[in-house]
Amino acid sequence: MGRESVKVAVLGATGAVGREMLRELELGGWRNVRALASARSAGQRLPFAGGELVVEEVRPESFAGVQVALFSAGGDRSKQWAPIAKEQGAVVIDNSSAWRMDPEVPLVVPEVNPDALAAHRGIIANPNCSTIQMVLPLEALRRAVGIERVVVSTYQSASGAGQQGVDELRAGLRALVAGHEVPHRTFARPLAGDCVPHIGSFEASGYTNEELKMVYETRKILSLPALEVSATCVRVPVERVHQEAVTVDLGAAIEAEEARRLFAEMPGLEVLDVPERNVYPMARDAVGRHETYVGRIRRDVTRPATLHFWVVSDNLLKGAAWNAVQIADALYDQGGLREA
Amino acid sequence: MGRESVKVAVLGATGAVGREMLRELELGGWRNVRALASARSAGQRLPFAGGELVVEEVRPESFAGVQVALFSAGGDRSKQWAPIAKEQGAVVIDNSSAWRMDPEVPLVVPEVNPDALAAHRGIIANPNCSTIQMVLPLEALRRAVGIERVVVSTYQSASGAGQQGVDELRAGLRALVAGHEVPHRTFARPLAGDCVPHIGSFEASGYTNEELKMVYETRKILSLPALEVSATCVRVPVERVHQEAVTVDLGAAIEAEEARRLFAEMPGLEVLDVPERNVYPMARDAVGRHETYVGRIRRDVTRPATLHFWVVSDNLLKGAAWNAVQIADALYDQGGLREA
Repeated sequence: MGRESVKVAVLGATGAVGREMLRELELGGWRNVRALASARSAGQRLPFAGGELVVEEVRPESFAGVQVALFSAGGDRSKQWAPIAKEQGAVVIDNSSAWRMDPEVPLVVPEVNPDALAAHRGIIANPNCSTIQMVLPLEALRRAVGIERVVVSTYQSASGAGQQGVDELRAGLRALVAGHEVPHRTFARPLAGDCVPHIGSFEASGYTNEELKMVYETRKILSLPALEVSATCVRVPVERVHQEAVTVDLGAAIEAEEARRLFAEMPGLEVLDVPERNVYPMARDAVGRHETYVGRIRRDVTRPATLHFWVVSDNLLKGAAWNAVQIADALYDQGGLREA
Repeated sequence: MGRESVKVAVLGATGAVGREMLRELELGGWRNVRALASARSAGQRLPFAGGELVVEEVRPESFAGVQVALFSAGGDRSKQWAPIAKEQGAVVIDNSSAWRMDPEVPLVVPEVNPDALAAHRGIIANPNCSTIQMVLPLEALRRAVGIERVVVSTYQSASGAGQQGVDELRAGLRALVAGHEVPHRTFARPLAGDCVPHIGSFEASGYTNEELKMVYETRKILSLPALEVSATCVRVPVERVHQEAVTVDLGAAIEAEEARRLFAEMPGLEVLDVPERNVYPMARDAVGRHETYVGRIRRDVTRPATLHFWVVSDNLLKGAAWNAVQIADALYDQGGLREA
């Protein structure tokens, strides 16, 4: 059975990530796709493979016969619908944080821990966008010399908050240019013309849940439960693509040139690092790309076993839709989907 | 002799920092001020203390009788003119990087190392903007428990590249909103709608000189020559005020609450840290303010002797003009200016 016949459902199809999921499925040759969403979006038409999909309201019977279901509809809806889809024999690939830390749910970045897929019991979690792009270079370093401690500061784009985040940034930039006050609602504070050091919600520790996702998800994906990780997550007035400044204490000293080679050999990762020609990754280079880009690779001024780099990826693609479709691809290739 | 009679010269008076120097001098009650610049700007009129200053072309005789000269005209002009001004008896307070690492030149943040002033031989250096705002909280921690290692990622505004940086960002935002390509010249890559991980020029180590300033200046100001410091300096599409995510390994474990108390007691520093009410420092809070703001104060998830915080300050004021005028004030108060 070719990919074109596999029965796929996308829940949350009208959202920023859902639309990219449809596009990635289309590009990958999947054709038997059903678009699901809440009642509010039912009836909307979405372009797909030269035709259109009519969005259906999600109901228990929506998953009848579905072999793989991609979810991007938030944690609450995932908690509600994943057990139902799974019950009916679909494998759920979920983009919310609802299942990620469940010990029975694999948390997968296919280039990093594909072997984790086999243990799934019907639900596979897609990691957080900011985590996915960071674990690619970390895994390359872990394999070579081991890693001991990670400190990361993020420069995350508005689209991480969905289409409403993009819309609010655009409206904010128009207001800023016109000399008006910048409106805000999706973001806790006005984003246009500023940085907001607050993504998600605050926990008692003073960290946000977004920052703690980077801590706990990184440990789980890399199977390094004691890895020291700390993150500061900051929203920047950029529409799409997340950027991160990463510091890693390694198990052994390596030269920057050796790190560049390790990164270049890592699937999914591309090195853009020719500083003397102003070549380093930026958001505008990564929009619409599957690759994660790494640059500004350098050894610490004083610590030979510490490396710094800058890692950039399209948060809607490798950070969400593309990683989910890669998981579906891997399941398909492994014969891990039930017969239709 | 009151401040109003002290003979002051400002070299680079028409630049973004020079204008702020005039404003700070005005607010501080200095009145006998001469505005100097290159021939190109001579004849320009700048508002000052209810009247106007006519900008004069800098010449050797410009410094005759001058008691204190504030320089913000770039490294080359500083190398050229500081010896001449000093020769004529002025104390030069220089905002460029030209003299900062000279062992005979004190590098001063008045709240941190005022005692260093006494050793000057006619030239005192103002540290780099990104360094100044970071050493305030670092000094508070150093005094209490000692500090061992600092990792910082910066979110630096366009005005760090002067008025031309501000103008380029504004033009870029207008282009972005209109759907046109973003022009660039001052910045190595287009800044509007993106982040540029490149400030200053690249060195063989892969660091930029801006990043290395943060390393070496921090060590000198804190008199900690072996302090481990590493920086990643990133330009963000914000007009004014620099923001920084700082990680510090301390000499001993402290609670976040204790750090908050230490920061609140540090002169020049103000704590804005009530996350549950979305209170943390942002650029818009700091524009036009002398204070440096600190928030997002938290202990590391796993390392009790590691602290993270977010520090925000107006790069044109505490990062440049205000720190320079504070130094002039300190010299005046100590009787450290020659007789007129």
